Parts: sequence; C-alpha cells; structure tokens
Amino acid sequence: MTPPLTLDDCRRLDAQDPLRALRDLFILPEGVIYLDGNSLGVLPKAAPARIAEAVTQEWGTGLIRSWNEARWFDLPQRLGDQVARLIGAAPGEVVCTDSTSVNLYKVLFAALSAQKQSGRTVVVSERSNFPTDLYIAESLCRERGLTLKLVDDPSEIPAALTAEVAVLMLTHVNYRTGAMHDMTALTKLAHDAGALAVWDLAHSAGAVPVALNDADADFAIGCGYKYLNGGPGAPAFAWVNARHADAWEQPLSGWWGHAAPFAFTPGYRPAAGVGRYLCGTQPILSLTALGCGLDAMLAAEPLGGMQALRTKSLALTDTFIALVEQRCPEQFALVTPREHAQRGSQVCLRMADPGQRIGGPAYAIVQALIARGVIGDFRAGDEPEAAPGRSQAAELPSGDGLGTPSPGGRGLPDILRFGFTPAYIGFEDVWNAVGNLAQVMEEEEYRRPEFNTRNAVT
Amino acid sequence: MTPPLTLDDCRRLDAQDPLRALRDLFILPEGVIYLDGNSLGVLPKAAPARIAEAVTQEWGTGLIRSWNEARWFDLPQRLGDQVARLIGAAPGEVVCTDSTSVNLYKVLFAALSAQKQSGRTVVVSERSNFPTDLYIAESLCRERGLTLKLVDDPSEIPAALTAEVAVLMLTHVNYRTGAMHDMTALTKLAHDAGALAVWDLAHSAGAVPVALNDADADFAIGCGYKYLNGGPGAPAFAWVNARHADAWEQPLSGWWGHAAPFAFTPGYRPAAGVGRYLCGTQPILSLTALGCGLDAMLAAEPLGGMQALRTKSLALTDTFIALVEQRCPEQFALVTPREHAQRGSQVCLRMADPGQRIGGPAYAIVQALIARGVIGDFRAGDEPEAAPGRSQAAELPSGDGLGTPSPGGRGLPDILRFGFTPAYIGFEDVWNAVGNLAQVMEEEEYRRPEFNTRNAVT
Repeated sequence: MTPPLTLDDCRRLDAQDPLRALRDLFILPEGVIYLDGNSLGVLPKAAPARIAEAVTQEWGTGLIRSWNEARWFDLPQRLGDQVARLIGAAPGEVVCTDSTSVNLYKVLFAALSAQKQSGRTVVVSERSNFPTDLYIAESLCRERGLTLKLVDDPSEIPAALTAEVAVLMLTHVNYRTGAMHDMTALTKLAHDAGALAVWDLAHSAGAVPVALNDADADFAIGCGYKYLNGGPGAPAFAWVNARHADAWEQPLSGWWGHAAPFAFTPGYRPAAGVGRYLCGTQPILSLTALGCGLDAMLAAEPLGGMQALRTKSLALTDTFIALVEQRCPEQFALVTPREHAQRGSQVCLRMADPGQRIGGPAYAIVQALIARGVIGDFRAGDEPEAAPGRSQAAELPSGDGLGTPSPGGRGLPDILRFGFTPAYIGFEDVWNAVGNLAQVMEEEEYRRPEFNTRNAVT
Repeated sequence: MTPPLTLDDCRRLDAQDPLRALRDLFILPEGVIYLDGNSLGVLPKAAPARIAEAVTQEWGTGLIRSWNEARWFDLPQRLGDQVARLIGAAPGEVVCTDSTSVNLYKVLFAALSAQKQSGRTVVVSERSNFPTDLYIAESLCRERGLTLKLVDDPSEIPAALTAEVAVLMLTHVNYRTGAMHDMTALTKLAHDAGALAVWDLAHSAGAVPVALNDADADFAIGCGYKYLNGGPGAPAFAWVNARHADAWEQPLSGWWGHAAPFAFTPGYRPAAGVGRYLCGTQPILSLTALGCGLDAMLAAEPLGGMQALRTKSLALTDTFIALVEQRCPEQFALVTPREHAQRGSQVCLRMADPGQRIGGPAYAIVQALIARGVIGDFRAGDEPEAAPGRSQAAELPSGDGLGTPSPGGRGLPDILRFGFTPAYIGFEDVWNAVGNLAQVMEEEEYRRPEFNTRNAVT
C-alpha cells in the first residue's frame, strides 16, 4: 500500500515541475480548473496582442499588400514546420489548413489513389474512432465502391488486415477513452499486410510524443485547437510521408495547392510536396491565433520538449487516478488504460454501479463540477436503448480499484472525461479537481435539477 | 460631347451620396485610395473590438462553454442568414463555412449527383473563369469520368448546352474583366437544356444585386473576404436551392453537417437543409470577423440596400471610365463592358498600344500607383508566349475612346484592375486615383526600376 497522496505532495510536485514556467504563457480564467484542453485549449498570453496586430496592421493597414509584407502566403507552411517539430516530422512535410475532417478527406483520398492499382477494396477502422473520421471514410468508400470495415476492439485489428485492405485508418489517442495505440507496431502491421496507415493525431499532437517518420506512417492529420491551443476552430494540419508527397493528388485541388498559384492558368498542376494539400484561401486571423498556440508549445523545447511534457502528463494522470481511487473508490471506475504506453493525456471515468453506466448521474456530475469551476466534459455512452449486457464495458466487474478498462471498445458507458494539458495544468489543480468531485458525490450535489437539464450543445 | 468632369463634380456627387454614412463604418488606411476591395475588403470599424472580445472573452474566459454561451454552434447559419439578405436568398438557405474552393467542390459534387441518373457527362464553364473553380471542376470530372468543356467566349454558351450537359458552372462577375453574366437568362437556358446552374458569386456578393431565388439558380458559392469585408481568408458561403437542399449529399460529410452532431454516432446522417453543407469545426475568430463585415454591409439596408449600392457602384465606375478617357485617352483601352447590365463593380484597363498589351508597362504602372497609395492590382494576360493575333482582345481596334471590350474571352491582355466598393469608395477618390494614373503616365514614372521588379506574390 502506498500512503495516501496529500495536498502537500501535490504542491511539492508543482514546485519540482521543470515545465512550470510554461503555465505563465497561458491565460487561465480565474476560479477555473480547466480539464478540457483536449476539447479546446486555453488562450496563449501572446495571442490577444498578436491577433490585434494581424487585425489592425496586417488587415487594416497592410490590406492586400500583407500577402507579401506579412507573409500570409507561406503561413500554412511556416506553421506546418512548427507542428512538424511536435509530431516527429521534418520541415516542409506539414501544412496547417482547413479542418481535420477536410484534411482527412484529402489524405484518405490520396491513400486510396495510391492503392488503386492494387485492387484492394477495404478501409479498416474502429467503431469507436472519432465519428467525423468515420463519416468521411464512409463517404469516400461509398463514392468509390469500397467497404469500410469497423472493428469493435483494437485486438481485432491484426486479423482485420487481410489482403483486401487498402488503408488502416486510426486515431492515435481515442477521444472518448483516452486509450493510445502503438503507432509504430500498427503501422508495421499495416505495411506487412500491404496496407497504408493513416493516422488522426487530434488527441496526440502537443499531448504525447509522436514520431511519424520513425514509425514510417503514410499520412496523418490533426487538430489545431485542442492540445495545440490554436483557438476555437483553429485550422488543422496534414502531414504526408515524403515518399508519397509528390506521388499522389488530393481532390480538393484549389488555387493554393497549385504549382504556380499566381499564374492563374486554367489547368491544375499540383505543387511539389505537401503544398498540394492546400486548397482555397485560408482564414488568416485564425491561422495567426494558431501560431500563438504553437509558439507556446514550442517554448517547451529548451525544457525537454514533448518528452518532458509526456513525463508530466503521465504524472498528472497517475495522480488523478490515485486521488479518485483514494477519495471516491466506490463510485467510479476507470475507462482509460492504466498502462502508460496505452494512455493519452486524459482520464475517463464511468460510474462503478452497473445500473448507472448509461443514463446514470455522470452527466449531472460533470455539470455540477462545471458549476464549481472544474471543467471537464461528458460523453454519452453508446446505444442507451440496447439491451444490457451487450457491451464489454458494461460487463466489467467493478471494485478492483477503478476497475479494468476496456480500451476503445464498442458499447461504452457514459463517460466523465478529464483532459490534462501538461503545459498549463498543475498537480494542485488535480488535487482540487478531485476534491470537488468528492464533494459533489458526498453531498449528492448532482441531484440538483439544474444539473439535470441538458444543453442543446454539450 | 459632355463637358469634362471636374473635381467639383466629384465632390458634389459625394455630397449627394445617400450611402456616404457607410464609409464611417470602415477603417481606411491614411494616404491610401483602396481600389482592391474585390481582392480583400477593408477593415470594418467594429471588427477590432469584436474580435478582441471573441479572443479574450469567448475563447479566453468562456472556453468550451462558449459553444453554448457565445452561440458558436449556429454561427455558420446566423452569418449565412445575413449573407442571404445580400444575394436574394431566404433565411436558412446559406451557411458560411470553409473556403470558396471547398464549397464549390461540395455543391458541384451535389449537382453532379443530382444528374447521375440522367447520364449526362459534361460540365460547361468558361476558360476565363476563376482558375480555382476550373481546378475543382477538373478534379471532380476526372474522378467521375466526366468532361469539362470550356468555352472561350460567353456567346458560345448557348450552343455548348447540349443534351450531354449536366451542369453549367459560371462565375457571375468575371474576376479579371469585370464582365457580368445575366444570371436569370443563363440559368433558364441551362434548365431548358436539362442542366443545372452552379454560380460563383465571389465578385458579386455585396457588389451587385443578386437574386438567386428569383433566378431559380440551383447552387451558389461565394467569398467572404472581398466585397463582404470579412477579413483575410474569411470563410466562404454556400447556398443551395431549397428544392435540392434535402435531396443530395455532399461528400465532405463531417460532424458539423450531421443531423445529430453531438450524438457521436458512428454512422453519417446528413442534417436537413443547407446545414449538411457544413463539414468540420470552423475557424470561429475568422467567422467573427466575417460577421463584422456583414453587419457593415447590412447597414446599407435602411439606405436602399444592394440597389442603392449598385446605383453608386455604376456611378463610380462610369466616373472612372469617363475620367480615364478624359485624362489618358491614348494610353488605355477598356476591358470591362460599358453596358451597365454587363458590368460588375470593377473596371479593368489594358494598354491601348497593341505592342504593349502583354508584357508592356501595365505591371509597372500598377506598382507606381501603389507607391502613390492608389491600390489596384495587376492580372497577367494569357499565354504571353503565344503568337500575336491569337486573341480577340489583342485584335480590338484602339482609339474609340477606351475601345470596345471583350467580355470574358480567352487571350486577354495584361490588365490593370480597379475595384470600386461602393460602401467606402467616394467620387473624390476616383478623381484622385485617375489623377495619379495620369501623372504616372505623363512622368513615365512606371519606367523606374523599382516598379519593374516582380514580387513573388502579386
């Protein structure tokens, strides 16, 4: 038995944190413990002035001249080079542009083009993948007469990689459970089976070390507004392995991806490299905000970079898990894997009581925490109308601490989701978050009617 | 002979301008006459504070709560309803989202889906259409085994609308010549031939009255950062005729276009109406800026709205043409149509001297004007390497005032392009712009070496 963690322990961890200077690069709202940076990252301190400069100087005064003078034209590449440093890619391999979904359409289309001659007709993914990824894959598969095969559990992936599989499309860290795939192993498995590997890094970039080139992945996309702190709806990014960059085209062939974008020729000729994954004119103000988020994340480089962030992230999530077990042992079970190698930068809980796992108080608990300034979020379980017993997770025994998690399977329970952004979350925050959770449970605060009215948008 | 226009005439026109109050809604850089609002509109006065509020309050303080509290979720529709008032559409028919090119991909795909059963295999457009539109059409046609047929002159459109044509895809106002199509007539022609009509309103929305529903157009897209003053790279818009909105899907099937976007179900089900033309998460800061531009444009409604803006726009361009004829009669010829019904809100000039029409001083003249604070832009002519005599425009006789224009044909000369945004350009601006042009020509200022070095981006 390890002795219980104390507030002093948490304060000591904060005092020893080599990354504690990073917190000062962000503006954290007063009275808030923000455990939702996996949904929308916080405001970098440099952003308001920088965005105001882009508005009043670049737009207001520079106007059209700013394409040259403010270097708007290569902004997607300049930001892409910054992202590259966070995801194990090389300069010139990443562009920041469009949305994650649009970028997935581009790279999945390119990957399927690369496989056209092979006659392979299947895209493999997980049923628990982020839904928008599945929607995009569904659309491309329908249009091309291909099959989208969804596995219910990661353990089924190897068997699913048959000779018909063109692409294995996975999200590195599951948005709902926080379970993390072994990118290197799965990419190799895909390649051994003759398939290409497309990775969604929405919950990875800026959260966990990613080594796209070391893993020899084929295509990747990711999100600018989660762990990269790029602002609401910040443009996303796309990475293409250098061996594919000039080999395939993507179908959103807009002017910014043209080899000579200002020549205004009527015929399309794709730019060399990842530049061809650009399409139309990009939202410069939102790209500018993304740049502020990237600057703040890259300020971690002299302090140890992504490895140091990862070390702290695991310590934060370990501490959270230990404190929940210590303070609320009967009430919650763990959904996120305990094994470090399988865990992203978030912790998800479900209700321990099997009868409460779907439709129980999880939603109201999250609302009660938000009212207390502890912002996490709620993710509804699958198919509440289905018969009990259908899902693995609902079948798990409780009582073993926070229980044994089911990484990324189907039939998930209602989830309380807490993201831990190591750049600005500290150990005392974790202590206080769990303290509030314990109080919400002890005082049954979640029963209050105002926490049981669902918002239109959650 | 009408008497020459004088500075006093221009000042009188400004004094009588019923829209003069609109100019105060924008920030015009000091010492600049901005005739490039057709490339990037100016900064609305309300924008800096509103964007700062979105940055510090909505993002910084509200964080994820702003999806509800700041109503981020229906922002694309709320802005779309504002755009609708400017383009003859109804509330609920427009969304502001993504880029013009991406939106064209969506609506052209939907239009081609609508024609799939018909077996029609041709998309008709103009060779002089905005290149990015042609690139997108080229991509979709290649993917679907269809033919993109480009006419060289608008007069060839009727004959091109054969029984094989699925879609007529046109830009309402030509980006380079300023020539405007008759949307109602061409849409009817397309429908009579069994084709659908897709319109690009990039140089129309906010510049000329557009009546999409009256014209019974099928699909339309347009730009947020030109005459709508939405800021650099502002999100674009998409409109779908109500009869098509629920009938067809678009392939960029992201979460924001889902019927139940927060249900996180693995299968895609498109939202009802134009909402299905949304895809991924949108850049909220750039959308917020676009809202400021739309507010400023809609401030014209009590002053007569788009009709009043159109009246002023034609008076501005008439004045510009008259003053150029008066001050520089030998040097320039008109590319933009003289007929009001065929003219957008810009005037394009070419060099009158046939030997100067491509590769002549046009580029340097634009640079010299910019150095004087008169910002227009230069658009290179087609195929400078081709033999002289190949193009209609190059064959036109000069000397008849500014000559007879060639609306939208191929083989265009180098162009000096001047956009007149009636919301903030006045008649004295026009006087001063032409005065500067005359001085640049009289003093042969354009010969100076610094005006003959091309920027990487023009």
